[in-house]
Amino acid sequence: MIKAGDPQEQVLELRSGTSVTRRPTVSALEDILFEMLPVLDKGFVRVVDYMGDDAAVVQAARVSYGRGTKKVSEDRGLIRYLMRHYHTTPFEMCSIKFHVKLPIFVARQWIRHRTASVNEYSARYSVVDDEFYIPAPENLASQSKSNRQGRDSLLEGDEATRVLELLKDDAARNFSHYTWMLNEAGEGHDDSRSGLSRELARMNLTLNTYTQWYWKIDLHNLFHFLRLRADPHAQYEIRAYADLIMDLLARWVPVSYEAFLEYRMGAMTLSRTAVEVVKRMIAGESVDQASSGLTAREWNEFVAQLGLNSGGGT
Amino acid sequence: MIKAGDPQEQVLELRSGTSVTRRPTVSALEDILFEMLPVLDKGFVRVVDYMGDDAAVVQAARVSYGRGTKKVSEDRGLIRYLMRHYHTTPFEMCSIKFHVKLPIFVARQWIRHRTASVNEYSARYSVVDDEFYIPAPENLASQSKSNRQGRDSLLEGDEATRVLELLKDDAARNFSHYTWMLNEAGEGHDDSRSGLSRELARMNLTLNTYTQWYWKIDLHNLFHFLRLRADPHAQYEIRAYADLIMDLLARWVPVSYEAFLEYRMGAMTLSRTAVEVVKRMIAGESVDQASSGLTAREWNEFVAQLGLNSGGGT
Amino acid sequence: MIKAGDPQEQVLELRSGTSVTRRPTVSALEDILFEMLPVLDKGFVRVVDYMGDDAAVVQAARVSYGRGTKKVSEDRGLIRYLMRHYHTTPFEMCSIKFHVKLPIFVARQWIRHRTASVNEYSARYSVVDDEFYIPAPENLASQSKSNRQGRDSLLEGDEATRVLELLKDDAARNFSHYTWMLNEAGEGHDDSRSGLSRELARMNLTLNTYTQWYWKIDLHNLFHFLRLRADPHAQYEIRAYADLIMDLLARWVPVSYEAFLEYRMGAMTLSRTAVEVVKRMIAGESVDQASSGLTAREWNEFVAQLGLNSGGGT
Amino acid sequence: MIKAGDPQEQVLELRSGTSVTRRPTVSALEDILFEMLPVLDKGFVRVVDYMGDDAAVVQAARVSYGRGTKKVSEDRGLIRYLMRHYHTTPFEMCSIKFHVKLPIFVARQWIRHRTASVNEYSARYSVVDDEFYIPAPENLASQSKSNRQGRDSLLEGDEATRVLELLKDDAARNFSHYTWMLNEAGEGHDDSRSGLSRELARMNLTLNTYTQWYWKIDLHNLFHFLRLRADPHAQYEIRAYADLIMDLLARWVPVSYEAFLEYRMGAMTLSRTAVEVVKRMIAGESVDQASSGLTAREWNEFVAQLGLNSGGGT
Repeated sequence: MIKAGDPQEQVLELRSGTSVTRRPTVSALEDILFEMLPVLDKGFVRVVDYMGDDAAVVQAARVSYGRGTKKVSEDRGLIRYLMRHYHTTPFEMCSIKFHVKLPIFVARQWIRHRTASVNEYSARYSVVDDEFYIPAPENLASQSKSNRQGRDSLLEGDEATRVLELLKDDAARNFSHYTWMLNEAGEGHDDSRSGLSRELARMNLTLNTYTQWYWKIDLHNLFHFLRLRADPHAQYEIRAYADLIMDLLARWVPVSYEAFLEYRMGAMTLSRTAVEVVKRMIAGESVDQASSGLTAREWNEFVAQLGLNSGGGT
Repeated sequence: MIKAGDPQEQVLELRSGTSVTRRPTVSALEDILFEMLPVLDKGFVRVVDYMGDDAAVVQAARVSYGRGTKKVSEDRGLIRYLMRHYHTTPFEMCSIKFHVKLPIFVARQWIRHRTASVNEYSARYSVVDDEFYIPAPENLASQSKSNRQGRDSLLEGDEATRVLELLKDDAARNFSHYTWMLNEAGEGHDDSRSGLSRELARMNLTLNTYTQWYWKIDLHNLFHFLRLRADPHAQYEIRAYADLIMDLLARWVPVSYEAFLEYRMGAMTLSRTAVEVVKRMIAGESVDQASSGLTAREWNEFVAQLGLNSGGGT
Repeated sequence: MIKAGDPQEQVLELRSGTSVTRRPTVSALEDILFEMLPVLDKGFVRVVDYMGDDAAVVQAARVSYGRGTKKVSEDRGLIRYLMRHYHTTPFEMCSIKFHVKLPIFVARQWIRHRTASVNEYSARYSVVDDEFYIPAPENLASQSKSNRQGRDSLLEGDEATRVLELLKDDAARNFSHYTWMLNEAGEGHDDSRSGLSRELARMNLTLNTYTQWYWKIDLHNLFHFLRLRADPHAQYEIRAYADLIMDLLARWVPVSYEAFLEYRMGAMTLSRTAVEVVKRMIAGESVDQASSGLTAREWNEFVAQLGLNSGGGT
Repeated sequence: MIKAGDPQEQVLELRSGTSVTRRPTVSALEDILFEMLPVLDKGFVRVVDYMGDDAAVVQAARVSYGRGTKKVSEDRGLIRYLMRHYHTTPFEMCSIKFHVKLPIFVARQWIRHRTASVNEYSARYSVVDDEFYIPAPENLASQSKSNRQGRDSLLEGDEATRVLELLKDDAARNFSHYTWMLNEAGEGHDDSRSGLSRELARMNLTLNTYTQWYWKIDLHNLFHFLRLRADPHAQYEIRAYADLIMDLLARWVPVSYEAFLEYRMGAMTLSRTAVEVVKRMIAGESVDQASSGLTAREWNEFVAQLGLNSGGGT
């Protein structure tokens, strides 16, 4: 967990080397391998390795000796069938490994997904960089009135200015005190003080401090992560990462990705009661919330997803 | 995730109620059920539920209809056999659920143990309390010179005073700005401002802010957690929690706990090379680091664990 | 893993003992605790322990000190909200432990669910009982023509008779050879032979031989198991176990169970394309398979679930 | 899960194709990629994909931008440090995927390792091949007298002959009845019978029938699997697979493999009590079982591992 030198130089060196392999290889993903793709103001995602492709899903589902069928259309049909019927184990046969730089409060949401492997930069072992996430003005939103987990309108004028000032000043001040407490060797070192241990000094950092980790996950569990984190209800800051990873999936496993959009991201789940409402509506009956059997909140979600007006009409 | 009223009153109410059950019950653990056992300056651990006991381990190992043998000594022998030979699945048959209050930087170490269930207080949904961990003076240690992850001597005099001041002031200032940014309804609310959403404002908090969670884990995985976190190399702050949980284990599953001390916590693993060194030493040969085949670091660990002098002698 | 004596006697002994506890207790589940509830011809499920109840789900979701709200209706609303929005971690806070007797080929399907703890009776260590699953005549079905994983019409007459004869004879013959190869001490032992080790002799047993295990799982993962195994597409033999466990859930966590029926078991997922079809149908448009954008197979599933005729009409 | 055509031809086709990649590539593993490496009488293991190498372990441990250090010796030192101190997450950053053909009773032991991904050939969906494991005469051992899970001396003469006859005849007879019950289209099909469904007919197969699966696991969990299954106490039949995989590890990650031998496979764990015994012995004291504090069984294991005579002397 030694701090790296010049990242850009090291990435370029990695990108210049190639090997010959018999493994499945995806050129659209190789094209951006190791690149630091920017997210938020100072974060990034970069793909550092991957295993498998769409054909590997088919191969595992068939427990076959070769690489799936000769016909692309048959592979596509099978992948969509697997996705539709929740036969998830073949998707576990592909894995991808990312190097991610992200604010600590985002890392705390992210780590709740336990079915992945993580190696995080250790602030117990090493000194942290002075980089903090400061939201862009267009992301500085007020608390939602209707949803306790959501955002609402933008902050404006003096309030917005003051919030940004506070975030910057507090992060910077706390970081400078962190540095003072550490009293590391080098510039500014004070020989008369012993310095606080790293594992203690870090507690003074703010939650928007950037951290880094290696994160490895299989395709099935990545789909699950994205379903929750690329969802409009996810906090904007983690969604920014999830949206970028969606694009990377489209490069890596285009057929599985398309099936994921069709049967998960773009899908709608009807509850037992909602199924009955749809049946009545298709039969031409006029249904409103009172007669639907759904709660007001469920009704609102229902009409929104089907693009109906709040009275249930089209 | 509504903030509770008066915790103490609610705990007392829970403790006053009892039921009759046919399940295995452990009276030594029932005695402290729901109690907030203090850790660090403002944290706690409390047991909110448990499942199984020593006999449940035996019962599962034997896939038996009843509750193990009649003889306590046979159960003890089996439990020690299971522990010694890494037959870990019977220990998974017991579970325990804790309510824990802990600083965020400790929570970030703790959550790396993925084989547990967690529900954390949501700072996206609710407003955080203004409680921060401030180390006691006797825990304010400098960075270890020999171990990049460790602590060394205590900070003293002005340096210690100043560090404590900085930690207190920075946490308090950042919290007051957090409150100002939120601009929640109630005392101090400013009608002219819309207030920043909770999910954003929290990023200004420091890593020593206290959080809370429910944490449920099975006995096998709890042993693994404790082996790493009750170890002298673990950071003091998480070890304080682990040490308390060790005491709770002694109440809950005394026979398994004793086997855990014998075969895990108090055990010593000899590498392939170290086995040869021990053989030579037992045969009366004098071995030093140079002739041992161990690296200097391994040699130091070896002689320390066996209580030898650094030359290998007794 | 010693073979138990008379199971019935041991179960009765367990059922006669009670303790006082402060833990959440569910009397409807206590009523059948330890009882061997029959499944298939010789199998059973019995609940040997449990942890938590509906209120424990609420308590964890709120990270509260007490046991949820005073009002039952608020708890119910929260549980349904959690289920609807896939906030699954609070359901992990409840666990249940079963002792199950089941045919090996069913055990092989069951064990694919990895998020559970298992202790199986060891045929390496102990001698197996001579009990085999023989299907009832009403479950002796032919291979489905349309679905490679399904069954179709019943076998009848001589064919059915002969199939049952073969299953019984082959299982019995193989078991008697298993016994002969073992040459265990006791009746029938032949002093002149050393006997084959248990770990080898077992390979002669048939896949309908009964085995037993302890199986512990949390409520969230149990819901996932049941969604797949209580589904009409699951093989009848494992579904028989899943159906019984559904009834046990209704006793244990009635509110969570009701939410599970509403939002999972009885729910219908519309793909992105199917959402558009529903919108058009509700707007009064007549849609058939050709104009739907769905494949023939998807269309058939779609009209079946909505109770439409195959032309899409009501 | 369609049955493949001629495996050998498909494997050769796979082996003839190569791609260019920027990913870490291990030529010693590429050399045997896709090859069916024989195990037991009719089984095999073949590597179908892999991700990462020794340098990937270092890279993750350091959360670095490049590929570890320039000096091989530093990487080796770090890998040994990680292994020695149970810093296991960097080893999770490498994965390997196998296609394995193995007897069902071995598959049942193997599947107990839950931290892997599996796709097994489905006997519910497809017809099984008539291949059974029949032990070689040199593996036909009697039950151990001292260890309920072990084997002892070889079976000889008429008993051995008869056992092999029974295993062959029973497997073959049951398989022919399985085929008769299925009454699949093609040679031998009887138009007057409907045939039993595959999901039912399979229950007549014996546990030595071969099955196949794709099995993907990360390096950390593979080490854990091998520690248990390449151990002398593991059943010979699964150990044969584990031993072969050990050789594959030596090709893939030679430095990690060497550390695994040093700190796991060749290591010895001393219990708390045994540490005291070793200290006394090194100090020149003569210790026997009675004075050791170890049970007779523990004492025997202890002296065997240290190559002492049963009196404790050298």
